[in-house]
Amino acid sequence: MSRYLNPKYKNLEAYTPGEQPQNMKYIKLNTNESPYPPSDGVLSAVNAKEASLLRLYSDPESKDLKKAIADLYGVNEKNVYLSNGSDDILNFCFMAFTSENTGAAFPEISYGFYKVFADLYGIDYDRIPLKEDFTINPADYYGLGKLIVIANPNAPTGLMLSLDDIEKIIQENPENVVLIDEAYVDFGGNSAYKLIDKYKNLIVVQTFSKSRSMAGARLGFAFADEELIEDLEKIKFSTNPYNVNRLTTAAGLAALRDNQYYMDRCKEIIETRNFTTEELVKLGFEVLPSNANFIFAKSNDIDGLSLYQELKNKGILIRHFSDEKIKDYNRITIGTREEMEAFLEAVKTILKEKKI
Amino acid sequence: MSRYLNPKYKNLEAYTPGEQPQNMKYIKLNTNESPYPPSDGVLSAVNAKEASLLRLYSDPESKDLKKAIADLYGVNEKNVYLSNGSDDILNFCFMAFTSENTGAAFPEISYGFYKVFADLYGIDYDRIPLKEDFTINPADYYGLGKLIVIANPNAPTGLMLSLDDIEKIIQENPENVVLIDEAYVDFGGNSAYKLIDKYKNLIVVQTFSKSRSMAGARLGFAFADEELIEDLEKIKFSTNPYNVNRLTTAAGLAALRDNQYYMDRCKEIIETRNFTTEELVKLGFEVLPSNANFIFAKSNDIDGLSLYQELKNKGILIRHFSDEKIKDYNRITIGTREEMEAFLEAVKTILKEKKI
Repeated sequence: MSRYLNPKYKNLEAYTPGEQPQNMKYIKLNTNESPYPPSDGVLSAVNAKEASLLRLYSDPESKDLKKAIADLYGVNEKNVYLSNGSDDILNFCFMAFTSENTGAAFPEISYGFYKVFADLYGIDYDRIPLKEDFTINPADYYGLGKLIVIANPNAPTGLMLSLDDIEKIIQENPENVVLIDEAYVDFGGNSAYKLIDKYKNLIVVQTFSKSRSMAGARLGFAFADEELIEDLEKIKFSTNPYNVNRLTTAAGLAALRDNQYYMDRCKEIIETRNFTTEELVKLGFEVLPSNANFIFAKSNDIDGLSLYQELKNKGILIRHFSDEKIKDYNRITIGTREEMEAFLEAVKTILKEKKI
Repeated sequence: MSRYLNPKYKNLEAYTPGEQPQNMKYIKLNTNESPYPPSDGVLSAVNAKEASLLRLYSDPESKDLKKAIADLYGVNEKNVYLSNGSDDILNFCFMAFTSENTGAAFPEISYGFYKVFADLYGIDYDRIPLKEDFTINPADYYGLGKLIVIANPNAPTGLMLSLDDIEKIIQENPENVVLIDEAYVDFGGNSAYKLIDKYKNLIVVQTFSKSRSMAGARLGFAFADEELIEDLEKIKFSTNPYNVNRLTTAAGLAALRDNQYYMDRCKEIIETRNFTTEELVKLGFEVLPSNANFIFAKSNDIDGLSLYQELKNKGILIRHFSDEKIKDYNRITIGTREEMEAFLEAVKTILKEKKI
């Protein structure tokens, strides 16, 4: 830290992304990326002709992309917001909808970035414990007078709240924004986006990173009442108006045209998730019932950190969190069937070696 | 504005980008884009193979790209920072290096975004008037106890401070960061980046948007002492760690390999700038001596706004600013020789019609 940094950031701990080795030598089951490439339409949209247009700024209003999302989801363009990945949108939401007087509340076990945003803006926040079984108790979020942030399905648990529970939370917080982070919703979740017509305090955030195989393109989107969208646009146009670039826009448009391809891949991932879950259970694991493209599992024979390390030695990356309450578990991204078979083989070998 | 927005943003006026019509029907001389496409290396780096990797996150540390910039400029990788366009870096600098007690100071006539960042973070700031001839008086920036921000060359004037003047400003502000915004430096400016070894309070920001024909790719970079870079990384990893995406990284790497192509294009733009300046002077314009890829000019026969409007009617976009002190002028981006000939023809016609 330099002596020039605003002292309020002195103790800020930045987010630690999962390992991103660039050498491609691992089976990578640690950052919830899709094992499938983008659709053919995306592969052909990213080309020299599009690159030659890079000399020009992108459309800061992202009109075409907003329209394509609005058409696919059956909402009005004015209810759609786009930004450079869903992290960017979450950041702007913390910036816009919290204040000295309005803190934030989110589950104690959830996406690790929420705490970072709260620390960044120096706001007061509650990290609300999950129930014993890792589920969220909706009533814990009623009338707190804070920005409510809930990942649904939640990460790293993969567990889901019902739409009824979500709606109740929205109803019980009329004075505050309720932000539902649906990064993983396409893998079996139930999106709350249709509720935006009914509630002025709801923001639903989704992303092209997971179900649309575009983590490396940075494209997040959100649905909300027009006034909330305007607030977010104001923040964007006061920080970095062109943050969705040309190639990402071209790729995003193509991905929306090829929607069926992605929905089919999601189905495959769900099947592979079910297969992997069953096999792990046979190996003596406890696996939470996931609605995401990952599972959260613990073995009764090996601790979480050791399993993570031994798999890494065998060329397979999964994600381990050191937090006391979940350190027995690992979060395992669902790859292709072949990748998960290799993963299961490796787990078997590790457990066998352990018993000798 | 919704009733949920933090009230401190109530009067915030977002930045207004130059018009970005997406229909390509204008000769576009209004947002300082390059008239030349990126190099062949960039065109072939943006391809289906790269698109297939979009399923994976980009390297949040941008190691390869940092190394390539460090190699080209002859600095250490630890002195290089990368982000999603130079606006993003400017934003982070305002966020990191101002506070309740440390405001900002920048020229009254300069890049319009500085004021927006200052308003966004609610800091105290000085907008320091230019001299009568639109030049900056370096002594006005000595020992202000604030973040000093100077665009060099300045926009929209195109005028440049000498490196000696810049160094004096850095020396006279040892307790504060001096941010030199060199978006246009490759068109005849003298970069201050070599001074980073000597001064711990200097940040030099550059961009791929102008001289490297990649406005639509969003790639900005900065040089500074290692501790300042660490501060900026901390902010980035607390907001949006993956903000430089895969395709932009691939394009950026290719652009750096093709450096000579871009330096040749800069030379062409300088020649076209000189030609355009001479022709405008013949038509009775006053043109400030520019070191950028645009010129700032006023006619004695037609006011700035009318010229802007009449050119737009003829399919040519230039940029007019309504600020009282510069409303007689227009900022005209330097396009290809052919585009500038068309522009000059249109100006001649407008002036002729005016006299009838």
